[in-house]
Amino acid sequence: MSTGLLTDLYQITMAAGYFATGKGRERACFEMFFRRLPRYRNYVIAAGLEQAVEYLLNLRFSRDEVDYLRALPQLKRIPVEFFDALADFRFTGDMFALAEGTPVFPEEPILTIYAPLIEAQIVETYLLSMIGFQSLIATKASRIVEAAGGRDVVEFGARRAHSPEAGALAGRAAFVGGCVGTSSLAAGHRFGLPVFGTAAHSWVLSFENERQAFRKLQELLGEQTVYLVDTFDTVEGARLAASLGRPLWGVRLDSGNLVELARTVRGILDEAGLRETRIMATSDLNEYRILEFTAAGAPIDVYGVGTDLATSADSPSMGVIYKLVELEENGHKRYTAKFSEDKHTLPGAKQVFRYSRHDVIACANECMGCHDAEAPIALSRPVVIGGEPVEKVPDAFAARENALASVRRLPATVRSLFDTQAPWPVEYSADLKSLYERVRGSQREPQA
Amino acid sequence: MSTGLLTDLYQITMAAGYFATGKGRERACFEMFFRRLPRYRNYVIAAGLEQAVEYLLNLRFSRDEVDYLRALPQLKRIPVEFFDALADFRFTGDMFALAEGTPVFPEEPILTIYAPLIEAQIVETYLLSMIGFQSLIATKASRIVEAAGGRDVVEFGARRAHSPEAGALAGRAAFVGGCVGTSSLAAGHRFGLPVFGTAAHSWVLSFENERQAFRKLQELLGEQTVYLVDTFDTVEGARLAASLGRPLWGVRLDSGNLVELARTVRGILDEAGLRETRIMATSDLNEYRILEFTAAGAPIDVYGVGTDLATSADSPSMGVIYKLVELEENGHKRYTAKFSEDKHTLPGAKQVFRYSRHDVIACANECMGCHDAEAPIALSRPVVIGGEPVEKVPDAFAARENALASVRRLPATVRSLFDTQAPWPVEYSADLKSLYERVRGSQREPQA
Repeated sequence: MSTGLLTDLYQITMAAGYFATGKGRERACFEMFFRRLPRYRNYVIAAGLEQAVEYLLNLRFSRDEVDYLRALPQLKRIPVEFFDALADFRFTGDMFALAEGTPVFPEEPILTIYAPLIEAQIVETYLLSMIGFQSLIATKASRIVEAAGGRDVVEFGARRAHSPEAGALAGRAAFVGGCVGTSSLAAGHRFGLPVFGTAAHSWVLSFENERQAFRKLQELLGEQTVYLVDTFDTVEGARLAASLGRPLWGVRLDSGNLVELARTVRGILDEAGLRETRIMATSDLNEYRILEFTAAGAPIDVYGVGTDLATSADSPSMGVIYKLVELEENGHKRYTAKFSEDKHTLPGAKQVFRYSRHDVIACANECMGCHDAEAPIALSRPVVIGGEPVEKVPDAFAARENALASVRRLPATVRSLFDTQAPWPVEYSADLKSLYERVRGSQREPQA
Repeated sequence: MSTGLLTDLYQITMAAGYFATGKGRERACFEMFFRRLPRYRNYVIAAGLEQAVEYLLNLRFSRDEVDYLRALPQLKRIPVEFFDALADFRFTGDMFALAEGTPVFPEEPILTIYAPLIEAQIVETYLLSMIGFQSLIATKASRIVEAAGGRDVVEFGARRAHSPEAGALAGRAAFVGGCVGTSSLAAGHRFGLPVFGTAAHSWVLSFENERQAFRKLQELLGEQTVYLVDTFDTVEGARLAASLGRPLWGVRLDSGNLVELARTVRGILDEAGLRETRIMATSDLNEYRILEFTAAGAPIDVYGVGTDLATSADSPSMGVIYKLVELEENGHKRYTAKFSEDKHTLPGAKQVFRYSRHDVIACANECMGCHDAEAPIALSRPVVIGGEPVEKVPDAFAARENALASVRRLPATVRSLFDTQAPWPVEYSADLKSLYERVRGSQREPQA
């Protein structure tokens, strides 16, 4: 499927306008970041970079799409040469980005695009949506994994995700955030992720009785067998499961008081000698409920989390934005920023330097830490140069390793599931601050 | 793209199990419904039916997808004939559904699938996600349109939707719920919807000054011109817009106190004789903020709503479920239901009869209203029979008409944006109640 039209109309009207006014080839720098952390979050896990790169490398406008655009009333005065240029569109610019799985904080550029103005403008909508969504889900997963305190978490939310395609991407993003796998076959197939799942209530109901349903499942799945034991009565279901013995991977509890039931079911399984049989819990879970189970010491081995994970239910959007920060006109670089009443942005391309206890946002060409006791890490790195990938983009497995290791290094106050009084400190470099003042001063009289 | 793997693994393990146990061709009936209304909602607008039908008609498993499934550890004991059958998969069943745009309430079947057990099982995940998501967004849009009290609402949320594909579908669903259009070109192209949008802050910032940016936009867009006036100072921006005169469609305010600014800007435009120039407001809007603007009599003509609409932010998921309610084994029909501690379902296929002041959920074969003063409407109607569409499925335009007219007929208490004390009454027919008791009685001893 062509991806050209997965954008907002105004990106194309602006692109057409840049073309018509001879600004199309001016080299622009746009940065993606968020002003505030999403509600209830102390950090965000950057995710979706692999798909962002695929998009940039494959972005095209089909003949049919170009014809559709030409017929729009908003574009009727646009010269035909613009549409010809769209038909030949290729992304030729550069992208710098934080590695997938990196914790990111307000004002820090998650990614930076350097490209001709037309190209940089058109890609905004897709990049915001893809990076914003996957980061939202990876962050939610990271919190749930934190709450589970070492127990495995599987993503089960495809059915409640915002469209089937979002379900597949949620499976990937949840894996990046630390889940061990997903129920989504599309995610498993496309991204090579481990997939989980055995049977639902309909399986049990489709047989004459629970015993027959369980026996047949065991015959078919062998050591992969997981009985869903709550269709009629969870304790009776667990006794039946225990009576059927091995092979058996586990039992799943999907309703009732999960702490009490897990204890009772654990007892039943242990008594039958099935000590290695896992107890999986599902049923409208999230990090807050799982934290209660962890605190109560519930003998639950695996959590399956659906709706709340695949929609980041308590914080279902992230105010990720994409702002023009530099523009080169006739070889002269101009820094840009927005200074309206309640929305300011910082001018100029930036770099994020991460120290062990804080970050510094600096100008992109600054060298930081030369004189510091601790050498910081420059997080924003080249990913695409001149429309070509610099190297193979790390996949979901590498991103997951990065996320798990990075979150482990964050202080407990930042990893907390609740609003912290001690957020991760993010400072601005002296150069960035003076650039801000300089640009602000020069833009005082916009009508001039 | 093939859609076969846009499902959960357990749908395939169950399908394989039905195949292996000779149950695959048993005719099943599954119903999709929700137990409770989404948070803060008094009604739901059913949406997404057109895409659900497309899915059923085009569902296939590619060779590559079948090979992927065969290699999964969970499916290693499954006979090869099952995978051959998957490669030839076609949906051959029936679907009944409420027309798109119909208000729907708890326990009412949004759609009903009659099909061989394997087929009915595999389609669950996709149908839940597609119908659930579009219904969520159509419902949110309906509330926003209600709050706007006759002013136009445009969907602007592609960048914050849960993936680029969700953005396109959100544009469609918002239109079904009553929006006049969307910023999403993919939605415009695929579904024939009106598209909106002109320029962002980056347009203004890319020129030397605001005046130049506005003049160029006017030259290019003519009577479609909308100036974004808040890049530096909204009132100054509006004065500049007024000084440039016609052609001009409108101005857009994107920050600050929108009620006050709209009044000031209206004055500036009127004084310049631009009485027909529209004021559009954007900036983190939702039905609650718009209700305030409506109540304050703010002179805003068009609302552009993004994030909160495209993610249904205050209620980002709907507990839509899909349950086996009937199964025909060897020519004998069995009614099924789930009776676990905290989750019950009603057995048997159902029909929804809508009266002017209440609904009755009845058994599918019941005749209601023959002796009533008022003849009810049977809402669930055949859409697909034997794998073929009964007629052309109504599109987003027809669905929108249905939604707007249907919501107009709901009592004010149900249309309220806040939790109502007088919800829409939904009753069960006597036959349905007795079927429930009968099935519950027969399932008392599940281990029998």
